[in-house]
Amino acid sequence: MPRKDQRPKGKKVSDSQTIMTEMIMPNDTNPLNNLMGGNLMRWMDVAAGICAGKHCESYVVTASVDSVSFQQPIRMGDVITIKSTVTRAFNTSIEVYVEVFAADMKGGNPRRCNDAFLTFVAIDDKSNKPKKVPPVIALTKEEQQLYDGALKRREFRLVLSGRLKPEEAGEIRSLFHPTN
Amino acid sequence: MPRKDQRPKGKKVSDSQTIMTEMIMPNDTNPLNNLMGGNLMRWMDVAAGICAGKHCESYVVTASVDSVSFQQPIRMGDVITIKSTVTRAFNTSIEVYVEVFAADMKGGNPRRCNDAFLTFVAIDDKSNKPKKVPPVIALTKEEQQLYDGALKRREFRLVLSGRLKPEEAGEIRSLFHPTN
Amino acid sequence: MPRKDQRPKGKKVSDSQTIMTEMIMPNDTNPLNNLMGGNLMRWMDVAAGICAGKHCESYVVTASVDSVSFQQPIRMGDVITIKSTVTRAFNTSIEVYVEVFAADMKGGNPRRCNDAFLTFVAIDDKSNKPKKVPPVIALTKEEQQLYDGALKRREFRLVLSGRLKPEEAGEIRSLFHPTN
Amino acid sequence: MPRKDQRPKGKKVSDSQTIMTEMIMPNDTNPLNNLMGGNLMRWMDVAAGICAGKHCESYVVTASVDSVSFQQPIRMGDVITIKSTVTRAFNTSIEVYVEVFAADMKGGNPRRCNDAFLTFVAIDDKSNKPKKVPPVIALTKEEQQLYDGALKRREFRLVLSGRLKPEEAGEIRSLFHPTN
Amino acid sequence: MPRKDQRPKGKKVSDSQTIMTEMIMPNDTNPLNNLMGGNLMRWMDVAAGICAGKHCESYVVTASVDSVSFQQPIRMGDVITIKSTVTRAFNTSIEVYVEVFAADMKGGNPRRCNDAFLTFVAIDDKSNKPKKVPPVIALTKEEQQLYDGALKRREFRLVLSGRLKPEEAGEIRSLFHPTN
Amino acid sequence: MPRKDQRPKGKKVSDSQTIMTEMIMPNDTNPLNNLMGGNLMRWMDVAAGICAGKHCESYVVTASVDSVSFQQPIRMGDVITIKSTVTRAFNTSIEVYVEVFAADMKGGNPRRCNDAFLTFVAIDDKSNKPKKVPPVIALTKEEQQLYDGALKRREFRLVLSGRLKPEEAGEIRSLFHPTN
Repeated sequence: MPRKDQRPKGKKVSDSQTIMTEMIMPNDTNPLNNLMGGNLMRWMDVAAGICAGKHCESYVVTASVDSVSFQQPIRMGDVITIKSTVTRAFNTSIEVYVEVFAADMKGGNPRRCNDAFLTFVAIDDKSNKPKKVPPVIALTKEEQQLYDGALKRREFRLVLSGRLKPEEAGEIRSLFHPTN
Repeated sequence: MPRKDQRPKGKKVSDSQTIMTEMIMPNDTNPLNNLMGGNLMRWMDVAAGICAGKHCESYVVTASVDSVSFQQPIRMGDVITIKSTVTRAFNTSIEVYVEVFAADMKGGNPRRCNDAFLTFVAIDDKSNKPKKVPPVIALTKEEQQLYDGALKRREFRLVLSGRLKPEEAGEIRSLFHPTN
Repeated sequence: MPRKDQRPKGKKVSDSQTIMTEMIMPNDTNPLNNLMGGNLMRWMDVAAGICAGKHCESYVVTASVDSVSFQQPIRMGDVITIKSTVTRAFNTSIEVYVEVFAADMKGGNPRRCNDAFLTFVAIDDKSNKPKKVPPVIALTKEEQQLYDGALKRREFRLVLSGRLKPEEAGEIRSLFHPTN
Repeated sequence: MPRKDQRPKGKKVSDSQTIMTEMIMPNDTNPLNNLMGGNLMRWMDVAAGICAGKHCESYVVTASVDSVSFQQPIRMGDVITIKSTVTRAFNTSIEVYVEVFAADMKGGNPRRCNDAFLTFVAIDDKSNKPKKVPPVIALTKEEQQLYDGALKRREFRLVLSGRLKPEEAGEIRSLFHPTN
Repeated sequence: MPRKDQRPKGKKVSDSQTIMTEMIMPNDTNPLNNLMGGNLMRWMDVAAGICAGKHCESYVVTASVDSVSFQQPIRMGDVITIKSTVTRAFNTSIEVYVEVFAADMKGGNPRRCNDAFLTFVAIDDKSNKPKKVPPVIALTKEEQQLYDGALKRREFRLVLSGRLKPEEAGEIRSLFHPTN
Repeated sequence: MPRKDQRPKGKKVSDSQTIMTEMIMPNDTNPLNNLMGGNLMRWMDVAAGICAGKHCESYVVTASVDSVSFQQPIRMGDVITIKSTVTRAFNTSIEVYVEVFAADMKGGNPRRCNDAFLTFVAIDDKSNKPKKVPPVIALTKEEQQLYDGALKRREFRLVLSGRLKPEEAGEIRSLFHPTN
């Protein structure tokens, strides 16, 4: 008989992968007719949250959004496609990788726009407390790479939010001293 | 040298297939907390329009939406997935088949909700006039079935909009007299 | 004493007729500055639902939207007027006829744009189940015509949704063989 | 031959009367589930502006909104009906009278909620300057009363905005000294 | 021990002063690209309501909006700043003074656009009834002026809404006969 | 005479500081009634962009958003205050520091929620190209600290986006080897 709080069974990455498509409407743009960065982040958060909810079979809340940079403008009338993929589960949280692609309304000028990592905490809707998350089963090489990098990114977040001292962040430290 | 107005080259169904995912927010629902039918139709129109635009490599405008029925309620917080597929091109118009699936935020209670056929006219954004549409290359059996049924559905629309007399609608007529 | 579930008393068409007026804002339009078809359908659904709710004195949910075609473009800044009229009640459902008119912001270029039939099911908000609907009392000639055509349209919907075999649809069948 | 800037021909009140119907959605309400006053004012402004535009056959911009009071709460799911009527034209501006009625979604609890007077200036969209407005032809007794009171209300606005000294406001002054 | 319904302790004006900043998006504008008056009023209501809620430490509902005039157009892309200040508390209601400033997106063309007085009633969220409001402590000269004028403005509202006869409105009467 | 492209004159931090206040509406929340992270990021982007636009006296576009973490839930009906401050200008870009505070509608439970650094590029609206940004004059101790840390944060962004090798990031490297 399963114990309470036992770790749920692992699930494949492909089981929760989510594609979202949106068309850029006038109200999403700034006076230069480009999609505003904040609107894109809102969609990325919704898309990643749907993906995380599917994997965790749970309500989820956003815990963090890693830094995002915006290179190429996305124009009014363009169509964006947001692909969300779980990378790795921690105890009660899950990391999601989001990629954004754009093309114009005619399908022309297809391009890669952004990517970002977001983390979500699974919430039990009865107790309103965090709950355990199923492990991620990474099968393809790309899924495995995303899985492997998750620990390092997590250490980064802990340093950035002041919950880990830089000198204790072994994974990151080695980045700066690859020969150590 | 290609003649002006020549028919563009055919394109595969899969080249323009589009997946849209949306979460049902409070403002999308009626006081019974169900997604309002009109909001679903708005999303189906956007999703199908993006798909039609990709196939036609053109701006498109909605020409018709065939009848839609709403069986199962979709609830606040549910996630819907809208899959749009071109079925067949006519001279300057294209038919798109849209299927709607829903699940709750945890991925539970997955179900098929609706389907509908929409037609779009491709518009040349310089002349603002209809332009020729690339033929649809149907490869799979399902794509072929959708392709084959398109003529009959078109006849239906012409009868419904009064542009064809019922007694001249040969395809539909045979429905009611299969032995004729 | 009235029995439970007894049919409510009939109500006149004019008691629930509803006029909705909207101005087309930037976000309602596509990049060609025309009202998107799906947005119009959303408004038609809300307008018809308000009318159905008034007639049924009940919450209502959309059951079906018959096919709609979009002939003339409606432009940004145009004003649309949506007129909703109940046509006929069935046991727990009601058919509503919706007409859409448009004019520019100065009242110029007034025109008829669309019409459609929608059906709604009345829902008892205690049991969350369908409830009986008051009969429609058609007085004018136009109201009577809409009333008379409702059975045929209903048969159509049953055929289209696969709940009635075409060869059993007597009303429609006669359309194709007027001399039978 | 008509001189430039000549006064346009008078139009009847009924030619531009406008009915707007809206259902109160979650985002329109405050945490007590009542329609927020500001949202109602936004709708009143749009409704009155459409009516003014029709009468003036022109673009219009809001010049003033007279004081509005909110007595009875309007609830989420309620349906409001906004009736807009021109009352009197001045040189390049027009006064519009707006009345708001509400009922619940079932048509129950029908009630009068608010009224207000708004003024609009007609704008020529070529010169971007104010343009002359057609006189209002008041036919019914109610229309005549609204017409007659318009001068007094206008004087009020001029006093309130500091463009007229109170002691020069003859119409209003007589309110406080009816025997003078 | 405090008696039930005792007047709460006074609070300083500065304790609840609220600054709201908004950028004008396409959907906020009319076809002339100017902010629509009704949208500005919606923001003024939200801004004043937040300020009133802070002062009253309570839910509040809009009771009235005094007349507002719109002089200078505010353009798409402009940034508006809304400053809300409580002026004086009455028994269960509070008057808030709202000033609107605008500038273009580059900070250029800064200007004063509007001001208005709104009143709110504090609502106890358990009983759903009006509750007593803390007195306003006016410290600066400007705060004192706003405080002093509040009685006269209140008398005005009572006259306008028909709850006070003009000839009994002593404060206003004196405006028209300064020498009496 | 100033040369073209010369660096504009420095401006004080306080000249562009921006306060934005928003109330959390139903559509901003997830089914647990908490503000969704992505919606908060959208507001942070608009608030910071207004601040950057004021400092640069220019249109601006978002270049990056540094990582953000979400600790405490913000509830429906809560009021958030977003304070935006420029920290340091680089050649054609500017860093903005954003802090988010929340309280309930009654002003209760005031708390600090989030902070983040965003960078914007100033765009000349004639050439549509980046333009030089005025230096930031930091006066208070807090402004000076934000100014001093900007170089290190910039180095971080360059490493994260792959435009600088970790081992060349001297500022960050020293974080991990404080004794070097």
